[in-house]
Amino acid sequence: MTETTLQSARGELRSLAVEIFDTLRQSTAARRGVSRESFGAGENAAFEILVDVARRFGLETATDRAANLLISLPGQTGKTPYTACGSHMDSVPEGGNFDGAAGVVAGLLGLVRARLEHAEPKRPVRVIALRGEESAWYGKSCVGSSALFGRLRKADLASVHRDGTGTLGEAMKRNGAAVDAIEAGTPLVDPADIAGYIELHIEQGPILVADSLPTAVVTSIRGNLRHRRIRCIGEAGHSGAVPRGLRNDPVMATAALIHALDNHWQDWLDKGHDIVVTTGIVETDGRAHSVSRIAGEVDFSFEVRSEDTATLEGFYELMRSECDRIAAERRVMFNFDRRVDAEPAVMDRRWVDRLLQHARALSLPERTILSGAGHDAVLFASAGIPSAMIFIRNHNGSHNPNEAMDIDDFLKGADLLYRALMDPP
Amino acid sequence: MTETTLQSARGELRSLAVEIFDTLRQSTAARRGVSRESFGAGENAAFEILVDVARRFGLETATDRAANLLISLPGQTGKTPYTACGSHMDSVPEGGNFDGAAGVVAGLLGLVRARLEHAEPKRPVRVIALRGEESAWYGKSCVGSSALFGRLRKADLASVHRDGTGTLGEAMKRNGAAVDAIEAGTPLVDPADIAGYIELHIEQGPILVADSLPTAVVTSIRGNLRHRRIRCIGEAGHSGAVPRGLRNDPVMATAALIHALDNHWQDWLDKGHDIVVTTGIVETDGRAHSVSRIAGEVDFSFEVRSEDTATLEGFYELMRSECDRIAAERRVMFNFDRRVDAEPAVMDRRWVDRLLQHARALSLPERTILSGAGHDAVLFASAGIPSAMIFIRNHNGSHNPNEAMDIDDFLKGADLLYRALMDPP
Repeated sequence: MTETTLQSARGELRSLAVEIFDTLRQSTAARRGVSRESFGAGENAAFEILVDVARRFGLETATDRAANLLISLPGQTGKTPYTACGSHMDSVPEGGNFDGAAGVVAGLLGLVRARLEHAEPKRPVRVIALRGEESAWYGKSCVGSSALFGRLRKADLASVHRDGTGTLGEAMKRNGAAVDAIEAGTPLVDPADIAGYIELHIEQGPILVADSLPTAVVTSIRGNLRHRRIRCIGEAGHSGAVPRGLRNDPVMATAALIHALDNHWQDWLDKGHDIVVTTGIVETDGRAHSVSRIAGEVDFSFEVRSEDTATLEGFYELMRSECDRIAAERRVMFNFDRRVDAEPAVMDRRWVDRLLQHARALSLPERTILSGAGHDAVLFASAGIPSAMIFIRNHNGSHNPNEAMDIDDFLKGADLLYRALMDPP
Repeated sequence: MTETTLQSARGELRSLAVEIFDTLRQSTAARRGVSRESFGAGENAAFEILVDVARRFGLETATDRAANLLISLPGQTGKTPYTACGSHMDSVPEGGNFDGAAGVVAGLLGLVRARLEHAEPKRPVRVIALRGEESAWYGKSCVGSSALFGRLRKADLASVHRDGTGTLGEAMKRNGAAVDAIEAGTPLVDPADIAGYIELHIEQGPILVADSLPTAVVTSIRGNLRHRRIRCIGEAGHSGAVPRGLRNDPVMATAALIHALDNHWQDWLDKGHDIVVTTGIVETDGRAHSVSRIAGEVDFSFEVRSEDTATLEGFYELMRSECDRIAAERRVMFNFDRRVDAEPAVMDRRWVDRLLQHARALSLPERTILSGAGHDAVLFASAGIPSAMIFIRNHNGSHNPNEAMDIDDFLKGADLLYRALMDPP
């Protein structure tokens, strides 16, 4: 390939990336940002866009038994062992366009580039567009990758949609997933067939922006413990007529709890723990609440994240003991839904080193970073598959409509991914 | 009237009271309890039930220019000066059957009893079923009585329904209120025509139950200052990827605020102030919130009540200064909707004494009490009309479906009201 042809191919890749991201954004636009529901309309629309592009460039597409989309170079579908390269296509409600999609699009561009440059990867490559990574829809994260490794449980499949409409199992079935096998915990792939897994993803925090770096190589991923819904139950009453000493006010109790956890969080940071604590949902009952009514109950979510399992469990225990204390002091009750766990994971040392080596060759930063967010890569790593991640600089965080990745940064990351796919460890 | 006839008349009144309350409950039943929307379907259904009963007993009915329902003895409609006796017929959403209705039904029963016993009150009596006392629907309380005295403002009429559907002014107009005159602040009655106002109401707190007393005489009524909606605006972000120091988390900020106000409240009680503080509504944005997303904003309500205006204003100032402090510390913003005020009121000494005297004659408690809740009586008192209230013991508080008044307690209170209507000060 001559230098001129290469430049033109690169120009084509850039245009293609812009086109795919624009089409995704337009096809899945919400009131603000995009909404790509897990196993729902938005995710399916995104899959169709990928399939169209893949076919345009003569790539092969298939669907696995968890309804994930697979894209391969011609003749490579089903070849083992392979390098898996993926990320997810769903988004949180009113989320950003790049969270998840960037990784799949980068993988797809890698295959297109191999076609354009007539290059052959050292091992077959399988790009996987995974389903249902975002827990915002059914409360369970990394559904598509969990299903692959027999890691979904009956209770996960029974999880109800955030709007109360139907279960995760039903949505998966509608999309052709082998729900019976998945519910039985049958692995849908043999981990021995997967020589490595690599995932490119936008950074969901502000660190690469703060440090002015376009890309970084992830060394470990935080796990988390969650309750989607903790209900604090008190006693409703007239706001004017019940004196303080006779109230069982769940709003005051919940405020006391959240504020106490916020203070503990700072203490744990001061002691050197890696930890973030979030209550993203708080709500009194919209059908009954009013300004002049002591609320009868408050629902709220709880999440703690850390790269260290002991920190997760320790802070969780502290949260439960604070609930006990506040329940006794304030005559309220805390009811907990099922705890949902996502374990932390360490990235493969050989992959990390190889990525840093390719980064050096491309004059990209040899920077390593911790992933605060969970990713499908955790599931591959837990299955014993050597796994790695590339982070792309991204403005305004993620899980919000203002998420903003520069296309130049993306192409740098995609370049690094391409090198790794062609020349894996 | 012979003793036997009197007993039978009393039996009839008891049956009538039970019948009216049962019909009200059935006609306005909600998912839980009853819902009688201000200037809406439930309030209108309740009015129709009153009109039916009034006609059955040959009473006269009319509607005033605020769409309140008036009931009089035959030939007494329009006679001045009169004793006004009333309360409201609306309820909070999923509220109880007796809050408001008990007072109107007691007045109606008083007129029926006067008919049955061929008794003549010292002054004409006008029973008023007032509209829109509950602020739960449009954020403004005592709408029907405020309109009577030219106390509604343009901004009140522009208040939007809790579901975002239409304004208070529109709902009033639909029900035949003279909205133009009301908006101009024109009084719809001449206070000089009203010799006194008396309102029977269930106690909305737990004090009479705790003290085992069926009735009490109110000496003063708490006022309040409110915001229906304070919005705490922070910055949305991924819950795993944004470290504590870079967050502007409105949930943590709101929890800090509410918890601080709770602590201040206890301090103010310790210093001897009469005060209750309530946040009945808290909610993150249901269309965007999720477990794994730092919320972008939180909406919540604020209310402080006291019998003392200085306490109200003082605590309000404290709340605003805490918002300023927390906004600066936590890099969030607090936005306030219009503050809605309801002034405190002192009941008329001559009326209170007369009620205590009648209570003694009926072997009812000579107990006086403070009203924690606001009532239409405040508006009459503010207009210079000598006003008074009777409280009936009530279990499980008010503004909730478990509100429970014993019919025997009600009949004792109605007896006291009847005496006061027949023999006012």
